[in-house]
Amino acid sequence: MLFEKQEYKNRLSKVKSAMKKKGIDLLVSQDPANMNYLTGYDAWSFYYAQCVLVHINEDEPICFLRAQDMGGAYIKTYLQDKNIIKYDEKYIHTWPLHPYQYLVEIIKKRKWDKSNIGLEMDSHYFTAYCYKKINQGLPNAKLKDSERLINWVRLVKSNAEIELMKSAALISEIGMKTAIDSINPGVRQCDAVAEIQNTLFKGTLEFGGEYSSIATLLPTGKGTSASHLTATQDKFVMGEATIIELSGTYKRYHVPMARTVLLGKAEQKKIDAMKATNEALDAGITTTKPGNTADDVAQKFWAVLDKYNIKKESRTGYSIGIGYPPDWGEHTLNISKGDTTTLQPNVTFHMIAVMQFGDWGVEASESVRVTEKGAETFCKFSRELHIK
Amino acid sequence: MLFEKQEYKNRLSKVKSAMKKKGIDLLVSQDPANMNYLTGYDAWSFYYAQCVLVHINEDEPICFLRAQDMGGAYIKTYLQDKNIIKYDEKYIHTWPLHPYQYLVEIIKKRKWDKSNIGLEMDSHYFTAYCYKKINQGLPNAKLKDSERLINWVRLVKSNAEIELMKSAALISEIGMKTAIDSINPGVRQCDAVAEIQNTLFKGTLEFGGEYSSIATLLPTGKGTSASHLTATQDKFVMGEATIIELSGTYKRYHVPMARTVLLGKAEQKKIDAMKATNEALDAGITTTKPGNTADDVAQKFWAVLDKYNIKKESRTGYSIGIGYPPDWGEHTLNISKGDTTTLQPNVTFHMIAVMQFGDWGVEASESVRVTEKGAETFCKFSRELHIK
Repeated sequence: MLFEKQEYKNRLSKVKSAMKKKGIDLLVSQDPANMNYLTGYDAWSFYYAQCVLVHINEDEPICFLRAQDMGGAYIKTYLQDKNIIKYDEKYIHTWPLHPYQYLVEIIKKRKWDKSNIGLEMDSHYFTAYCYKKINQGLPNAKLKDSERLINWVRLVKSNAEIELMKSAALISEIGMKTAIDSINPGVRQCDAVAEIQNTLFKGTLEFGGEYSSIATLLPTGKGTSASHLTATQDKFVMGEATIIELSGTYKRYHVPMARTVLLGKAEQKKIDAMKATNEALDAGITTTKPGNTADDVAQKFWAVLDKYNIKKESRTGYSIGIGYPPDWGEHTLNISKGDTTTLQPNVTFHMIAVMQFGDWGVEASESVRVTEKGAETFCKFSRELHIK
Repeated sequence: MLFEKQEYKNRLSKVKSAMKKKGIDLLVSQDPANMNYLTGYDAWSFYYAQCVLVHINEDEPICFLRAQDMGGAYIKTYLQDKNIIKYDEKYIHTWPLHPYQYLVEIIKKRKWDKSNIGLEMDSHYFTAYCYKKINQGLPNAKLKDSERLINWVRLVKSNAEIELMKSAALISEIGMKTAIDSINPGVRQCDAVAEIQNTLFKGTLEFGGEYSSIATLLPTGKGTSASHLTATQDKFVMGEATIIELSGTYKRYHVPMARTVLLGKAEQKKIDAMKATNEALDAGITTTKPGNTADDVAQKFWAVLDKYNIKKESRTGYSIGIGYPPDWGEHTLNISKGDTTTLQPNVTFHMIAVMQFGDWGVEASESVRVTEKGAETFCKFSRELHIK
């Protein structure tokens, strides 16, 4: 087991408190990161319906999984066997049959079908179809959007979680070093990612890495205007910039990092944009401390951009921790103007500046931990435009 | 552009025919593989809402994307600029605001709000929340489940697509060779994946690889009873078996492969299970030809298992092609008893035998192409239990 049983119990207890406040008796969570957080379950099985059930009167969550994945739950979770429930393979790939039909049966059998049931309505894998199966199958239940209830419990990390993130940070640093070393004119993008992935999985002798919940992002040339492009078979070109966004991953915890490299002659507009971006990031990080809000951080960040007359529409950060594809963001804290979330010690977020200027862009980021009195960055790695 | 414009036009035309048959005027598709198939769009932006709109009277699909991802659509799609529509960053991470509110506005503005609108109700990223926004925002529309309409159009590959899959197959083969070479007693699982990923991205000199839509699956020891476990920092143990499932990926096309390796002394029950599995796979592949159904293939497969008194509940194959996380399956053809889909030339599927026996298992697979008269496997790689 990755954490002490007590840590899982504490998590469950916080989730139950939040459920009480929202008037939810039974929570259905299909978010793989939430499933991991509450049970330890960890497998690439989220491409079919599965979930965790949390009932306000039960001592343990229930893990609801495809039959083929039961074995994984015995190995990975802290749950008693009776709380690992499988659904039959007949529900796989046989629409209109659907695993949630059996979920509905389980809920009825336990007489929870007249309860207030919380659903993660905008969670990635909670499809409209899952919702319809529950809605039609449980006509006496009161369904409500639990929103990101478990995600909000995940916002403040335990010290044990912070330690895992520090290990992930070591992996991010060596991954980025490999990236900057590997990106050279005439090298295929895929060959650079081959080296990056190799490093991210090897990690260090003490801490080996895992698959990240987002592929290495590697927009290059004109592609730097689009932050989510991935590597192709094309070659890097002298004179062009490349953005690298990656994350070391340790025990599913992520500490992402973005940097920009420029091949060949220094280009003043890009150097200037990078400098302003870094000044803005620093202003935000300096403002990060318990008691301040996400808005406070955002205001200071954008004040610097305003000074340089730089317009940026997108948010500049989000909470991080456990991640599964397609995202390493936790979907809670949002570093943008107007987000009044108050920072607390051991809140962790990715402060990322995606800067787009028509057909080019630069990027840099820091993964940040709120400390007792201020903030610290997980990684130590120059944010300058890496010109080579 | 990856394909001739005519190929995209043909795809659109087939989708429109299918829409007509289902009585759908406007189709909203959020499946990233379907978006890629119809427009060429390719970026890791699917962690926020986005979609393709196909209207029965329009010459081109519309790509609906987050502002930050517009640049990627200009680079990757064949669409005219007017058919790339961005939504504002204010819709990102600011619930109850949601990108689909703006989508609703667009649909209204074009006076499509009284149409028959098809929605991919069980598509991974089409959340209950997306559905609610459309349902509430378009009260005059007739919403219906388009099911896997575009996915079914993808079932039969063009020759150009087959060529890309043949390139992916080359990458799968060298990836699996690296896997079997790297898995040794005392080696950390993550270090083996480091080598595997390195090979899968490097590909060949002619064909470089890409991120796969499923991480390298690497259940080992007792974990072989759970096919979706991924690599940890633990070491491989002498005497234990390891299942490897991976896919070479080229231009988003996947050709997956699974094999089992056993470290140390040959264990008869595993050798026997592997032998029976391979005989069953061969029986299925031999039955694969145009005119036969998925059920025909499945019957022959299970007849062999019956002969050996082996029980297997899960399906044994599914169509493959373009893939994005979390899946490389196309969600159409299902190699299982009762699936009456008729095979046609250039249907491609992953015939996979996940064999579980309590606390152990073995696996093997072939990616198969239906030819004019029969079938061929994409890869040539021994399926025997690799004992070393």
